[in-house]
Amino acid sequence: MPLSSSQRAALDALFNPASIAVVGASSNPAKIGGLPVEYLLNQRYPGAIYPVNPKQDRIQGLQAWPSLRDVGAPIDMAICAVPASGVMSAVEDAAVAGVRSIVMFSSGFAETGEAGRRAQNNLRALVEESGIRLLGPNCLGFVNNHQRIYATFTPALKIAAPLRGNIGLISQSGAFGIFALMLAQRRGLGVSHFVSTGNEADIELADALAWQALDPATSVILCYLEGARDGDKLCAALELARAQRKPVVMCKVGRTTQGAAAAASHTASLAGCDEIYDAVLRQYGVYRANDIHELFDIGYACSVAPMPASDALGIVSISGGAGVLMVDEAHRLGLSVPALPQAAQQVILERVPFASAVNPVDITGQVLNDTALLGDAVDTMLAHGGYDALVSFQAVTGISTQHRPLVTDLWARVRAAHPELTVAVVSIFDEANREFLEAQRCLTFEEPAAAVRAIAALHGFRRHFERAAAPIALPEPVTLHSARLDEAAALQLLAAADIPVVQSRAVSTAGEAAAAAAAAGFPVALKVLSADIAHKSDVGGVALHLADEAAVRAAFERVTQNAARAVPGARIDGALVAPMIGNGVECILGVTRDPVFGPVVMFGLGGILVEVLKDVTFRRAPFDLAEAHRMIREIRGWPVLGGVRGQPAVDVDAIAEALAALSRFAAANADTIESIDINPFIARPHGQPACAVDALIVARA
Amino acid sequence: MPLSSSQRAALDALFNPASIAVVGASSNPAKIGGLPVEYLLNQRYPGAIYPVNPKQDRIQGLQAWPSLRDVGAPIDMAICAVPASGVMSAVEDAAVAGVRSIVMFSSGFAETGEAGRRAQNNLRALVEESGIRLLGPNCLGFVNNHQRIYATFTPALKIAAPLRGNIGLISQSGAFGIFALMLAQRRGLGVSHFVSTGNEADIELADALAWQALDPATSVILCYLEGARDGDKLCAALELARAQRKPVVMCKVGRTTQGAAAAASHTASLAGCDEIYDAVLRQYGVYRANDIHELFDIGYACSVAPMPASDALGIVSISGGAGVLMVDEAHRLGLSVPALPQAAQQVILERVPFASAVNPVDITGQVLNDTALLGDAVDTMLAHGGYDALVSFQAVTGISTQHRPLVTDLWARVRAAHPELTVAVVSIFDEANREFLEAQRCLTFEEPAAAVRAIAALHGFRRHFERAAAPIALPEPVTLHSARLDEAAALQLLAAADIPVVQSRAVSTAGEAAAAAAAAGFPVALKVLSADIAHKSDVGGVALHLADEAAVRAAFERVTQNAARAVPGARIDGALVAPMIGNGVECILGVTRDPVFGPVVMFGLGGILVEVLKDVTFRRAPFDLAEAHRMIREIRGWPVLGGVRGQPAVDVDAIAEALAALSRFAAANADTIESIDINPFIARPHGQPACAVDALIVARA
Repeated sequence: MPLSSSQRAALDALFNPASIAVVGASSNPAKIGGLPVEYLLNQRYPGAIYPVNPKQDRIQGLQAWPSLRDVGAPIDMAICAVPASGVMSAVEDAAVAGVRSIVMFSSGFAETGEAGRRAQNNLRALVEESGIRLLGPNCLGFVNNHQRIYATFTPALKIAAPLRGNIGLISQSGAFGIFALMLAQRRGLGVSHFVSTGNEADIELADALAWQALDPATSVILCYLEGARDGDKLCAALELARAQRKPVVMCKVGRTTQGAAAAASHTASLAGCDEIYDAVLRQYGVYRANDIHELFDIGYACSVAPMPASDALGIVSISGGAGVLMVDEAHRLGLSVPALPQAAQQVILERVPFASAVNPVDITGQVLNDTALLGDAVDTMLAHGGYDALVSFQAVTGISTQHRPLVTDLWARVRAAHPELTVAVVSIFDEANREFLEAQRCLTFEEPAAAVRAIAALHGFRRHFERAAAPIALPEPVTLHSARLDEAAALQLLAAADIPVVQSRAVSTAGEAAAAAAAAGFPVALKVLSADIAHKSDVGGVALHLADEAAVRAAFERVTQNAARAVPGARIDGALVAPMIGNGVECILGVTRDPVFGPVVMFGLGGILVEVLKDVTFRRAPFDLAEAHRMIREIRGWPVLGGVRGQPAVDVDAIAEALAALSRFAAANADTIESIDINPFIARPHGQPACAVDALIVARA
Repeated sequence: MPLSSSQRAALDALFNPASIAVVGASSNPAKIGGLPVEYLLNQRYPGAIYPVNPKQDRIQGLQAWPSLRDVGAPIDMAICAVPASGVMSAVEDAAVAGVRSIVMFSSGFAETGEAGRRAQNNLRALVEESGIRLLGPNCLGFVNNHQRIYATFTPALKIAAPLRGNIGLISQSGAFGIFALMLAQRRGLGVSHFVSTGNEADIELADALAWQALDPATSVILCYLEGARDGDKLCAALELARAQRKPVVMCKVGRTTQGAAAAASHTASLAGCDEIYDAVLRQYGVYRANDIHELFDIGYACSVAPMPASDALGIVSISGGAGVLMVDEAHRLGLSVPALPQAAQQVILERVPFASAVNPVDITGQVLNDTALLGDAVDTMLAHGGYDALVSFQAVTGISTQHRPLVTDLWARVRAAHPELTVAVVSIFDEANREFLEAQRCLTFEEPAAAVRAIAALHGFRRHFERAAAPIALPEPVTLHSARLDEAAALQLLAAADIPVVQSRAVSTAGEAAAAAAAAGFPVALKVLSADIAHKSDVGGVALHLADEAAVRAAFERVTQNAARAVPGARIDGALVAPMIGNGVECILGVTRDPVFGPVVMFGLGGILVEVLKDVTFRRAPFDLAEAHRMIREIRGWPVLGGVRGQPAVDVDAIAEALAALSRFAAANADTIESIDINPFIARPHGQPACAVDALIVARA
């Protein structure tokens, strides 16, 4: 359970309080302690308000108390608007008074350096001990828009009050969050709940996300994220949003090098942290927006329209050009734009002989002479096209009152007949037309490409919601007997974890090598066996395509000597002998430990695609087979697996099964394993078993 | 000269006429022939207006004439608003009356099918013969906004008149064009000149582009392009715009398969037409916008702000988060974000100890208590950072009157001190603040990422304008002696065109082969010589790494027999013997003939990068060495040339020189050569000559 009922009740006390105290309350609304009181009064907050100020009896017409201890009534939430120096005694008072939660505006904590970090740690310890939930410090508070609570000191809301609606908005940056809140107002977007999380001494973005996921007033959640402290908590909150079928759209900024620098293995060096955020957000169904406009475009779509059941998009236009622009965008985003059946095309062509009737359907400017044309074309498309989403480009008709039938009447009729159809109308709108359409749950856009992007996003959310989120059973953890496991030991552990590995034999002498080769069948590969040597081929420690016993004997002597010379003092445990695995595609499977998300599985193809293009993809462990399949298809080199240059296609199921097994193994051993490299993993055609040919496991320090 | 003075004068008569006739003029402004008259009157068009209508004496208060022949005064431009059936006689009348240009609204031509295409051909022949320039048919006309000419029948301009400004707008689609014109008005963008080119029987988008390039009222040109008929004309118009330092921003939609299907060679199969448009637009400095918002964002930036002299961007913010978002975007777009010198950082940190002072400079919300902070930080950055562009994120201060000093005063002062600095201020603005800043040539954006994109685009235009556009001397054309040139003949022609080729010898017998190999030095390669066999290795026609004369003799017999068996009836002219070229990177250089742009040069790397990832790039021929260098750096596999997997870097100059030479050769022989494949072209480390190892030239049918 990502949010226990007691946790939820505590967050309810914070975000939906029945009573609010303001510590540091001021009679001057221009002050940080005065504005929240003014907001609560002006918004007619229905609960109790307790201003706290030792120097005044009354504040803005309300009775004031010298301290929280004096209030003598239950306090769900206290706003703390005192300087950092007064924070600890205020929290001590709150604990005594039984205050359930605090919103702390006060700055001067971790954002100011080492001393501030220590102060923040003391603050965190105090609230943890007293069981109080804390938002902040150094935050701009929150707005519960339906409950009329502006628990913030930004003066911006005096310029324009946020509109009420079903969009939740959470920002780690206060200034940016308020900026976004104001932009939403300018765009006509209604907000249910806004949170600025500030320094996150206690409550993180993920906590607010979980609360909004359960908030009945919120149906889509927009986030501005700089970085999560607790990846598990974030993923759990995203799973909760999924379970509630609430889309999450996120603007995630910043790229750090922590992750990449932390480990030295090949996998880790490819794992820039941002790539991992990107992959994990995708894995958990988050739409990652590149900028604020995109954040709002997608958030808007989720707040208004149903999500299409399939990817089949119908496009109708009164301009051929706009139709082409939209079909370009649909293809780019993986929506399908299926042709109308011939008979249905004929129906349209009988009305407008020079129309394009396939899909996009272009009914041409003729519609301005015969306004019924558009509705008739739409009816034909919906009756015969099998579309679950429809986008209609209508040029400037949305602003012209003479074209009302094309705008309001038409789409009201379509909505009545197709309650679950996703509809986007692209035009320039006057306010009345826009509001009418949105009340019909039809999207309005001025930008044709944005309309298609929104539909693609809606479909993506629906697909994500419909995926099974069954729990994944993990194997028993293993015990690592050294800090670096050599190839033989690593392959043995992986084999036990259901990852197919090459049948190799560890040998100590040239004679044993020859015997092992004869048993395995020629040709064989022979590799030096040493936990101290990570890259065996770099030191001349690998011999391939050995055709007979004599070659094997010679190779044994050569590779062990090469290795000893190249890495003086390395412990050499002999060699491994294995059959040559031909006729396949070299893949790389890896595990790295991300500081935020824990064990993360990597997949890529061997050779230039990984080494030059960094064509790899990641998933947080563990994941299921379907996720593994999506992962494999994300790399640009994916067509290689389908067979190129005369090679047969390889068995992709086998790769997916290995990735899913590796993810379970990595998750089960998250506490003890730092990284795993399986390189190469040879994928082979159907009927020939895939296998890991080399592997390295590094234990956590 | 892309636009002769007589051509320009003719377009002036069209787009800036001293007198306008309206054929099919109506007293009813709701009609296609009535609205233009009403617009001209309402806009107080200062020239003469001649309504033409055989049935009425007066139209909307003006004297009317029965025919153009009766006007008896010079007519610069005639609007033709009669049905298709009346068009030919109207044009005949226009010819007799000496009308210089026609805007034809009439539909029913090429857009309606074969009969309409014939009618349009007749129309084109008639205007060509009479020397009249024709805009349309089937177009929505044009607007010359400074001369108060609405030569259009769209009723949309009655709802909102386009604002006057310096943005030119050209659309091949009428409905889309008017939609964009109205959107521009909604965005507060001022337009100088709008053109809808319709069926382009005579005047194409490129003609209008050339005219706007020379129009003093226009300083940036936005285009909506579905496809150009005449690539040479388009490129010449783009060169004219470059010479005038006018940025061109284009929304190019649609992807056709003409180009790819037309030819069968390897190069051509990779050359989807859209990739070629994309490359040519880049080559000619066009910013290709993905959607209308981007078209307007970049067009807006060009209409307001100076173009930065370097890529050095300073970022200042009152929110750390926004700074990160902007630095992410700057890096993505190749802008540099250089750090402030340490001493300058100290100056900032003394004012705000907890600021980030590197770049982005985050002065934190502290600015709200001390408004001088922002200006002081900006002064420090501009004095010591070497920035030619500055973007400032100011949250919601732009809308709040209490923060005027941060908005208007500050940037007016900065502008006075730095007249050529590119400045973008990101905030939410009230109208007065926005207009004030734009009057100071400071950009205003609500979207931080869009501000950075705009600055990157402005810098890209400046770089493009500053590139030398020296004419490129072409070699003499060659004579092709057959439809397909075999390897020996092709390499010989390419060598003569300054492309380095391997020193190979054509031989007819095994004995000659052995002698040639001995002369070349072992090891050698031997390949069957036949113009009938394009892919020699597929038929066993290639032998590599031949180490001695015996191997060469055997290989000669083998490859000629293999080829004869695999391609019965193929003419086998013996074999080519050449030294093995080792130690290099295999490239592919090609030429394909694009139906729009003529000969186009392709570059890619051999192997999986081309075959699977289609990692290739194109340029219209001819081009210079600098363009070739840009081209090479566009492929994703570019790092391979710098040396990977222990290989040394190759001499990129040699590839660039070969590409530029190939482009001159292709341009010189555009009339006779259909395609060229040089595969492989081996790039080698400095000091070792690069060379073409195999080539195929196909003549135009």
